[in-house]
Amino acid sequence: MNIDMKRVIELLNGAEDVLILTHKNPDGDTLGCGVALCRVLRALGKRANVINGDVVPKRYNYLFENLEPQDFEPEYIVAVDVADNKLLGKLDELYGDKVDLCIDHHGTNVGYAKELYLCADDGAAALTLFRIFKEMGVEITPDVATALYTGLSTDTGCFRYSNASSECYRVGAELIDLGADNANINALMFETKPMEYFNLLSETLSGMRTFCDGKVIALKVTNEMFARTGATPDQCDAIAAMSRQVEGALCGITMKEKPQGGFKFSLRTHEPLDAAKICSAFGGGGHMRAAGCDADAGTEEDVLSKMIALIETELK
Amino acid sequence: MNIDMKRVIELLNGAEDVLILTHKNPDGDTLGCGVALCRVLRALGKRANVINGDVVPKRYNYLFENLEPQDFEPEYIVAVDVADNKLLGKLDELYGDKVDLCIDHHGTNVGYAKELYLCADDGAAALTLFRIFKEMGVEITPDVATALYTGLSTDTGCFRYSNASSECYRVGAELIDLGADNANINALMFETKPMEYFNLLSETLSGMRTFCDGKVIALKVTNEMFARTGATPDQCDAIAAMSRQVEGALCGITMKEKPQGGFKFSLRTHEPLDAAKICSAFGGGGHMRAAGCDADAGTEEDVLSKMIALIETELK
Repeated sequence: MNIDMKRVIELLNGAEDVLILTHKNPDGDTLGCGVALCRVLRALGKRANVINGDVVPKRYNYLFENLEPQDFEPEYIVAVDVADNKLLGKLDELYGDKVDLCIDHHGTNVGYAKELYLCADDGAAALTLFRIFKEMGVEITPDVATALYTGLSTDTGCFRYSNASSECYRVGAELIDLGADNANINALMFETKPMEYFNLLSETLSGMRTFCDGKVIALKVTNEMFARTGATPDQCDAIAAMSRQVEGALCGITMKEKPQGGFKFSLRTHEPLDAAKICSAFGGGGHMRAAGCDADAGTEEDVLSKMIALIETELK
Repeated sequence: MNIDMKRVIELLNGAEDVLILTHKNPDGDTLGCGVALCRVLRALGKRANVINGDVVPKRYNYLFENLEPQDFEPEYIVAVDVADNKLLGKLDELYGDKVDLCIDHHGTNVGYAKELYLCADDGAAALTLFRIFKEMGVEITPDVATALYTGLSTDTGCFRYSNASSECYRVGAELIDLGADNANINALMFETKPMEYFNLLSETLSGMRTFCDGKVIALKVTNEMFARTGATPDQCDAIAAMSRQVEGALCGITMKEKPQGGFKFSLRTHEPLDAAKICSAFGGGGHMRAAGCDADAGTEEDVLSKMIALIETELK
């Protein structure tokens, strides 16, 4: 059920002993929102924890400073930036059908939560949450501002992509004034990458393939490459983002082998290609310019061929 | 002579037949400011042209749409984002000692112009110029907003660096609302690189070496690599910038072979290493975080060894 701002505030004000869920393969937006909401609820005198089904990469550690887990039995469950209960990963079995409230910005949200507050035009769930906090009248402390800025910046590619509306910029300005150290956050999120990432990048780029007269770029990252370079699967995100940067490319496809085998496809597109539409044909989803799907129906090369055929049709 | 806002507006309102100069090896800020000022002056019924001593790279073409040169004898000369008359390049001999007004944000401005309006805290000269336009009360049309947004975004690394103040974000928001297509501008400025660049990047990264326990990274780009990948030497700038992004590295050294042979070294550093100081020991110079030198004294490997020895001393 899609609810309005008044209702979401009523729910958050009424909730006690809140468990906040974030999506697997976590990014700055889901973690930033989870941490921000957890801190705000605690400041309101409630008990709250934020958890993730995966191991959270170390570079996000700064978000969790002075946020020790609290000991309580969850009474109310909130998911932030989680479009589908399947994206809860290991938490899905435990909580997937028990989510009381979901706050999200994915137009593809499947509506698994009892109540859903969805702002599909927002460039980041952090923007949605910021608006809620403002309406609630809660104090946005420097560590809440830091968490929200992290979500806003990471989901908009540091205010670079088409989802970075002027409202994103204005909220970014306000969060900086409230204490978010934008230069350091962005240095951590965008400027520093482990040596292993660069080794993986080098190997991946050396295997770059082009299709549709250069309009489609395909990159493949295998478990063998992860093992050889020591890079971790989450470092693939930056490679996927890069796939769209090749001059003339309207679609970058990054095929990442999953630890258990099989491949996950990440798409990044420029106009007129709709990444979510293309991925939905393969059981996935996401946003217009960034989406993904699992490719378990056949070999990754079979799925790639079918996807390229679909893109060719779309481009006509 | 350092002047105030009132005086700069008086000067611009009083000027006729204005020639606007931008700095050599042009970037988005100098060109964006030049174009924005030229358009505003023309809208005020004046004749105005904007010129550069170098060939302006094609990716900036969108700034110059519908801005045909006008035919007149310059009566008033303005330089934008030009800290030193030497940075006028080929235009220095003609105009270096005739600049009536300089609008700039470089604290290092040498004061070559008759009158100087300097805002050294501004992340971009485009921010300075935006404030002038607001105070003048001129209309900021979509193409002026586009030019100013280009300057603001490129000089702050798309709102990423420490010079991106909350005011930069607020002005960015206003320029978007006034018609700057931020997504397309940023795609052109940051997101699009030729296929050859990625091929060169892959080859270069595969030869990455580390020294001083990973605190120093060295990359080498040879003429053979340029020839094999089809990449051009100016594409090395992005590779040099990347050399500092390796986790744990305090100094990235990029050795680029010159067309005529011999190598140019580009350094990028983090605290506490001073790139300009290191390069000055080899006859070069630059800024604290980015500097360069020619390495003609010996083979590039000899120079690299000496430089690493110097850095080791600096790190002690």
